[in-house]
Amino acid sequence: MNDMSTPASAGDINALVGDVIAVRQLIRAGTYTGETSALVPGIVQGNVAILPEDWADEFLLFCHRNPKPCTPIAVSEPGNPKLPELGDDIDVRTDVPAYRIFQNGEPVAEVTDLHEWWRDDLVTFVLGCSFSFEQALIEAGLRIRHRDIGATVPMYRTNISTSATHRFSGPTVVSMRPFTPADAIRAIQVTSRFPSVHGAPIHLGDPTAIGIVDIARPDYGDAVEVRPGEIPVFWACGVTPQAVIENARPSLCITHRPGSMLISNLPNSALATF
Amino acid sequence: MNDMSTPASAGDINALVGDVIAVRQLIRAGTYTGETSALVPGIVQGNVAILPEDWADEFLLFCHRNPKPCTPIAVSEPGNPKLPELGDDIDVRTDVPAYRIFQNGEPVAEVTDLHEWWRDDLVTFVLGCSFSFEQALIEAGLRIRHRDIGATVPMYRTNISTSATHRFSGPTVVSMRPFTPADAIRAIQVTSRFPSVHGAPIHLGDPTAIGIVDIARPDYGDAVEVRPGEIPVFWACGVTPQAVIENARPSLCITHRPGSMLISNLPNSALATF
Repeated sequence: MNDMSTPASAGDINALVGDVIAVRQLIRAGTYTGETSALVPGIVQGNVAILPEDWADEFLLFCHRNPKPCTPIAVSEPGNPKLPELGDDIDVRTDVPAYRIFQNGEPVAEVTDLHEWWRDDLVTFVLGCSFSFEQALIEAGLRIRHRDIGATVPMYRTNISTSATHRFSGPTVVSMRPFTPADAIRAIQVTSRFPSVHGAPIHLGDPTAIGIVDIARPDYGDAVEVRPGEIPVFWACGVTPQAVIENARPSLCITHRPGSMLISNLPNSALATF
Repeated sequence: MNDMSTPASAGDINALVGDVIAVRQLIRAGTYTGETSALVPGIVQGNVAILPEDWADEFLLFCHRNPKPCTPIAVSEPGNPKLPELGDDIDVRTDVPAYRIFQNGEPVAEVTDLHEWWRDDLVTFVLGCSFSFEQALIEAGLRIRHRDIGATVPMYRTNISTSATHRFSGPTVVSMRPFTPADAIRAIQVTSRFPSVHGAPIHLGDPTAIGIVDIARPDYGDAVEVRPGEIPVFWACGVTPQAVIENARPSLCITHRPGSMLISNLPNSALATF
């Protein structure tokens, strides 16, 4: 699976952060199995959810009804591991650093290659990820607190229900980033340009208005401080579809391991609407 | 000055609200001297400030340094009462319902025609007005509290200084509209499209952060309620340049009477950037 004549070592990854193809080769070879957030800044990364065809059609409907947390940036043909919208050479069976396998909602394996799990009826969804809009915020001159302290963004289950389908339902999960009011306004402008990666925030200010009891105790990720004069700003989060799929307990579901995303060939700017 | 063969009466204004040319004829004839906010919805209206040339150059620099409160949508040639950017037939000496004349900062007259005050060195500035973005907010489905109750938008002096020139300086004045957080986010998106009419808000949330002691006591306009679950959203306001000019006490200054604006030929959409 390694197309490189001289396989690179995992130690090479830091020298290759700007080189999409070289990083993909290391991941494809199983040499790099870690997190991807610091790799290839400016390139679109995506959340991966792979479902059997008899679940995939309904999941696409669920995405259609819930575009803020769940906009697919690519949907494969059944059984086809290629994702040409994201890059000609991408093979979803090898190009994610690590995968989690769920059967009937229960985790059964964590692997770095899907060849032995692949089936002719599997459909791949790649869903937009906030890495893309965070890069745009940074390029706009804003500071992102959890990145500054090397933490994972804090995420919260809310009292905002997703729009359900027959088998998929559950609460909207949000991520939170604190900003001064002026920076919050700028962040709304910047992220509005990226509707396929959650777009504009869905709430700002009072956390209790969306059912968050304690901002210091996120349901996922790490707590970050909201300083005096700042307001918490909440975006719909890609954990929403993950939680919804887990609740639905499909016969088989394969996801990326959290933090270890699929890296595309697209620049983030390809997702900007204007 | 009335180009109509049969002069219309003031009572006709309600029948003509959608007809820019007909409304302008009534104003030009001196038949209509009232407020303009309810007239010709969807058409750009502007604040008017007329200054002698020896003050005008510096005022243009002040506008350049303070684009949020003061973006000119038209600047005339000295002595020329025409404003072709806003409409081929507009004559600023007759086409505003009522004018206020200031000499050395003191009000000396209120008139409905400027012919006897006109001079060869007068430069007209037409500055963007929030009517344009309010129309866009309404078309986006948002409710604007002060309009719903038939009041004037509440306005406040802030502790945000404008960027001064030699003779022009003073605080930024803001207007306030309360929204739910979700509507506030939408309002930021909508008004961001209109940078020449104040654009995005400059603050939201805590009024004291920008020096507003009591939100229930505006410095100009009427108080409006901020209901539980709503946040106040603050835009830079066209009163800022008016106050700055008054403070500078130019030898002569002519403005529109507040609320009685210059009506252009442009649709509001002509000011949208995307």
